[in-house]
Amino acid sequence: MEKIGKYEFIAEPFHCDFSGRLCLGHLGNDLLNAADFHSTDRGFGMKYLMTIHRSWVLSRLSIEMTEMPSQYERFTVETWVESAMRFFTQRNFQIAESNGKVYGYGRSVWAMIDTQTRQPADIFAINDGTINQWIETDKPCPIEKGDRVKMDHNAELVRTIDVYYHDIDINGHVNSIKYIEHVIDLWDISWYREHRIKRFDIAYVAETHQGDKLSFYREQTGEQTYCVRLVKTDQNTLQDTEVCRCKILFTSHLIQRPQ
Amino acid sequence: MEKIGKYEFIAEPFHCDFSGRLCLGHLGNDLLNAADFHSTDRGFGMKYLMTIHRSWVLSRLSIEMTEMPSQYERFTVETWVESAMRFFTQRNFQIAESNGKVYGYGRSVWAMIDTQTRQPADIFAINDGTINQWIETDKPCPIEKGDRVKMDHNAELVRTIDVYYHDIDINGHVNSIKYIEHVIDLWDISWYREHRIKRFDIAYVAETHQGDKLSFYREQTGEQTYCVRLVKTDQNTLQDTEVCRCKILFTSHLIQRPQ
Repeated sequence: MEKIGKYEFIAEPFHCDFSGRLCLGHLGNDLLNAADFHSTDRGFGMKYLMTIHRSWVLSRLSIEMTEMPSQYERFTVETWVESAMRFFTQRNFQIAESNGKVYGYGRSVWAMIDTQTRQPADIFAINDGTINQWIETDKPCPIEKGDRVKMDHNAELVRTIDVYYHDIDINGHVNSIKYIEHVIDLWDISWYREHRIKRFDIAYVAETHQGDKLSFYREQTGEQTYCVRLVKTDQNTLQDTEVCRCKILFTSHLIQRPQ
Repeated sequence: MEKIGKYEFIAEPFHCDFSGRLCLGHLGNDLLNAADFHSTDRGFGMKYLMTIHRSWVLSRLSIEMTEMPSQYERFTVETWVESAMRFFTQRNFQIAESNGKVYGYGRSVWAMIDTQTRQPADIFAINDGTINQWIETDKPCPIEKGDRVKMDHNAELVRTIDVYYHDIDINGHVNSIKYIEHVIDLWDISWYREHRIKRFDIAYVAETHQGDKLSFYREQTGEQTYCVRLVKTDQNTLQDTEVCRCKILFTSHLIQRPQ
């Protein structure tokens, strides 16, 4: 089996936005699926980990795209493990047209936890360090690693939402992709008529549960760059906890869809 | 080519809810995809219709399930046209396990519109009434047709939300499935720990656009039956318009997931 896994997806029409391009959140979901297929085929996937009370936890995700697939288009996601340490592994992605033209790249950092203690677990303990057989260092991933998102205390509270049924996945907390979608929703369609997302970085800090309120603090940090801090408020204690930070780089360079 | 189309889907892990079962909205999306594949293969799909300024518009959708696929499970959707009239067509669905056990059924009613005038268009005018070759009347769909949802004026306003970027699809208005998801979100996880949706009916009346506010009026009409009326408020005129009505039948009979 190859170190790099390659999977085909389709930009389903109802996963595309008003402009007919795949929504970034749905692309993110496809990347997570590709990661799951790749790790399952190689003996360290979620389904197996569940049986030994372990789970992968997404710690960071960065997606940088020069163009998004159009509706009905088939595209491929290649994914591979760039490095593995005891408590973290780096997994990369390449998103391309079926004919090979590259649309963009992704980088992600994953931790492993013990699902009973919720504490970090040793990645190398899985099947005698099987992940080490699959490290791929030759394949380039020519986008920068996700930096720490720096924000000051001047970020403005722009929205507070309730966490509902659809936000929660089988792990019992808000799904990683849902945060991305809620952040993207902070801008409206008139904005997206003039801008597209060139790069999206997210770093996950804490888990959010149903009943929590999520508040979004936004700060413009560059001409086309915004940072957003998500803070949950516990419904009982009213205590605030930061749950994740995002950096969004927009571009006004829109690419016309072929007719 | 067969009159009945059969397509395989997978209950993707992040399309499942806290209980590990596929969310009804994602199943609905798969049904719409199956309808699109089936009609495209037979010469009356959306992609072709776009070129002649026509579009299918979903008018009603009913889904009745005895069980929902579990995460990672592959399942099939069969779909066929039960009848076609000049302005409406009825399309049915059967959802089954790969080994054949039927999970449930769907019924839908579609209209065709002229995308320039937004007026109803003649379905039989498409390729000399090609749809008539594909009518399948022998395959049973043993669930009731969606009745008119009757509601009085005592329904209680239970939530008002803003329509955001992710609600809008390429048609420029709120996606049919998003309404279903917002309605399902009216109940919380503690409710869904004790109940599952046995049947969901939705009848679409008007379109909603970004900037509109959507209000949800709910009424309990039976022991386990609720009706919900969605009303949009135009942000400029503040005028209220009904956009759709739903009927949700719950059951307390939960089916344990195989371990």
